[in-house]
Amino acid sequence: MSFERENIRKMSGYASGEQPEDESTLKLNTNENPYPPSPQVSKVLATFKAESLRRYPPATAARFRGLAAELHHVSPNNVIATRGGDELLRLAITTFVDPGECIGVTQPTYSLYPVLAQIQNCPIVEVPLLDNWALPENFAQQMNQSKVKLTLLVNPHAPTGTLLDYDRISLLASDLDSILLLDEAYIDFVEGPYPTTELINEHGNIIILRTLSKGYSLAGLRFGYGIAAEPLIDPMMSKTRDSYNLDHLSQLIAEAAILDQEHAKKTWLRVIDERRRLQNALLGLGLTSPPSQANFLLVSVPASCGLSAADIYQKLKEKHILVRHFGGPGLDDKLRISIGTIEENNHLLSTLEQILA
Amino acid sequence: MSFERENIRKMSGYASGEQPEDESTLKLNTNENPYPPSPQVSKVLATFKAESLRRYPPATAARFRGLAAELHHVSPNNVIATRGGDELLRLAITTFVDPGECIGVTQPTYSLYPVLAQIQNCPIVEVPLLDNWALPENFAQQMNQSKVKLTLLVNPHAPTGTLLDYDRISLLASDLDSILLLDEAYIDFVEGPYPTTELINEHGNIIILRTLSKGYSLAGLRFGYGIAAEPLIDPMMSKTRDSYNLDHLSQLIAEAAILDQEHAKKTWLRVIDERRRLQNALLGLGLTSPPSQANFLLVSVPASCGLSAADIYQKLKEKHILVRHFGGPGLDDKLRISIGTIEENNHLLSTLEQILA
Repeated sequence: MSFERENIRKMSGYASGEQPEDESTLKLNTNENPYPPSPQVSKVLATFKAESLRRYPPATAARFRGLAAELHHVSPNNVIATRGGDELLRLAITTFVDPGECIGVTQPTYSLYPVLAQIQNCPIVEVPLLDNWALPENFAQQMNQSKVKLTLLVNPHAPTGTLLDYDRISLLASDLDSILLLDEAYIDFVEGPYPTTELINEHGNIIILRTLSKGYSLAGLRFGYGIAAEPLIDPMMSKTRDSYNLDHLSQLIAEAAILDQEHAKKTWLRVIDERRRLQNALLGLGLTSPPSQANFLLVSVPASCGLSAADIYQKLKEKHILVRHFGGPGLDDKLRISIGTIEENNHLLSTLEQILA
Repeated sequence: MSFERENIRKMSGYASGEQPEDESTLKLNTNENPYPPSPQVSKVLATFKAESLRRYPPATAARFRGLAAELHHVSPNNVIATRGGDELLRLAITTFVDPGECIGVTQPTYSLYPVLAQIQNCPIVEVPLLDNWALPENFAQQMNQSKVKLTLLVNPHAPTGTLLDYDRISLLASDLDSILLLDEAYIDFVEGPYPTTELINEHGNIIILRTLSKGYSLAGLRFGYGIAAEPLIDPMMSKTRDSYNLDHLSQLIAEAAILDQEHAKKTWLRVIDERRRLQNALLGLGLTSPPSQANFLLVSVPASCGLSAADIYQKLKEKHILVRHFGGPGLDDKLRISIGTIEENNHLLSTLEQILA
C-alpha cells in the first residue's frame, strides 16, 4: 500500500548535478563560483560561540534583511531571507498558486521548476524559446491565455546564459496577469548596469530571487533572498515560511558575505574575464556558444566534430573533469560548462584539445 | 489586488515564542536545553574551512543519516535528515495529504500543526484529550471515521509534558487507517526505556520525528530527522524535499553532536533531576503540574492564588523571566515553564515566591 498522493507517486524528483566529494575532480558542472568566499566568513567562524546554538536563531533574519535592503535601496519589508533560492521558489508556489492552477516557464529552463509545479499538483505551461534563445514576442499573451498564475523566468537564462533586454522586463510585468518571478541566481555575472530591483516599486507583481550560492561563493551555505512589494513578501514571511527557516550561523555568515561587496565584485569581474577568454578559446576548437551573461557557457558540439556531446561529457569525466549534459529537446548536442579559474579553464581546454584531436 | 491563495489569505501564521537577543533575560519560554551543546561542536567550527562553502553541500546528508541509523538500529534508508522537525512535518503533509483531506490532532497540541494544515488547505480534525490529558480510548476510531490521512501526535505531549503508555503506540498504529507521525521532539527527556524506533519495522505507517534542537542543545542549528519504513522515507527524500536542504556546516555539526551521546545524555539526566525538583518546589507554592516527561512543566495557577496565569506571566516578564502563556480552551489558567539549570530554576522560584507573596 502506498500512502503517497497521486501526483507525488507519478512524479520524478529533481536530478541535481553530480557532487563528488573528492577534491581532485575539476567540477565545472554545477556553476559554483571558482573563487573562495569573503575572508570575513572565516572571521565569523573563528569568533562564533558554539554555545549560542543552544538558543533559537533570530526568527526573521532581520539583520541580514536590513543589509540586503540597504544594498538594493529597498525597505527591509521588501526582503525575505530564504534557505537558498529553492525555498523562495517553493514559497512563491505555496503562497500564490492553488493546486490545479498553471505555472508558466520557457522551454528550456531551470529543470527544478517543473518538479516544484508537480509537487503542488500544478500543470506547467511551457513556451519554447526562439532559435536564438530569445523570448517570443507574444510570451506574456501566451501566459495570460493559459491563465498562468505564476511565471518563472530565470534571467540570465539557464542553461543558455543569455540575458533579456532590460526594457523587456518592465513590459513583461505590465503585460502579465500573473506574478513574474525573476530568478536572478546568475545576475551578479552580468556586465554593466541592470537594476531590476528598482522595478519592484513600479510593479506589484514582480518577485526577484537572489542567492549567495554563486555570486558570493556560498553554494554550501544555502542562503538566498527575495525582493518584492510588501503584499507579496508579507504572506511568505508571516504565513508559509517554516518558522526559524535559517539557522543562526548561516545568518551571520550571509551578513558578512553580503557586506563585503568589494571581495564579491572582484570574483565577478574575474569570472567575466574568463568567460570571454574561454568562449573564444572554445570557438577555436570548433565549439560555439551563445553570448553568456552567467558563469557558464552552453556549448554546442557540431556533427563535424566526430564525437557527440554525450561522448565528450564521458571522456571529460574519465579525465576527472565534470561538465553537465542535460540531453532532451534542443540540448542533446550541448554541454553546459561552468567558468572556472584561469588554471582550471586552461586544464579544461588542453584536455578538450586532446579529446577532439 | 491580492495574489494570495484564498486559504493563505484567510489564515494567520505560526506565533513563535519571544526570542529576545539580550543575554540578561532568563528564557524559560521555548524549551531550549539549558546546557551547552557537545564540545565537539566547537571543534567542528575550529577546523571547518570557509572555502569549502564554495561547493554545494552533500545532497542527502548521507553521513549524518548513517550515524542516526546506527544509533537507532535501522538502515540509513529509514532516515531522512531535515531542516529542524518543522521541515519533516511539512514534507509529511506535502507528500501524503492532498488538499481537502483531513489531518488529525489532539486538542490541545503543538500549535504549529493547524498552521501547516491550513497552508496545505487541509481541514483539521481535533479530538479533545481527557481531563487528565490522556488520549480517549476511541481516538483511532474517531480519526478513521473522519477519514484522516495523517495523524500528528506529539509525545511527550506539548504543552502538557505527559507521555503515552508505550504499549498504546503500537495499538494506535495498528488501529489507524492513516499515517501516524510521532513528534518526539522531547523524547530524550523521558525516564527509562521507550524504544519507539523499533516500531517502524512492524508498522509501515509510523513516522518518527526527532530533533537536535532540545536533546542536543542545538535549537539554533535547525536540524532534525525522520525515521520510518522506506516507502515513507523515499518519496520525501527523492521528490518533495528541497534539493540541498541542509547546508554543509550544519551537517558536520549535527554529526559531531549525535556522535557525542555521552555529553547529550548528561544534559538529559540533569534536566530530569531538575524537573523533579522544580515540580515539587512549585507544588510548595501552590502551583500544580501533570507528570512531565519533557523538559517543561505545564503549571496550573489556582483561582485561590489571587493572580491569573496571565498576571504571573506579565510579572515574571517585568523581572526579565520569560515563560509561555498560551491562553485558549483549557490553557487560560496555565503557564508552560521550561526546565532551566539549577541556578536558573532557583532564580525562577525565588521570583515566583516574591510575586505570589
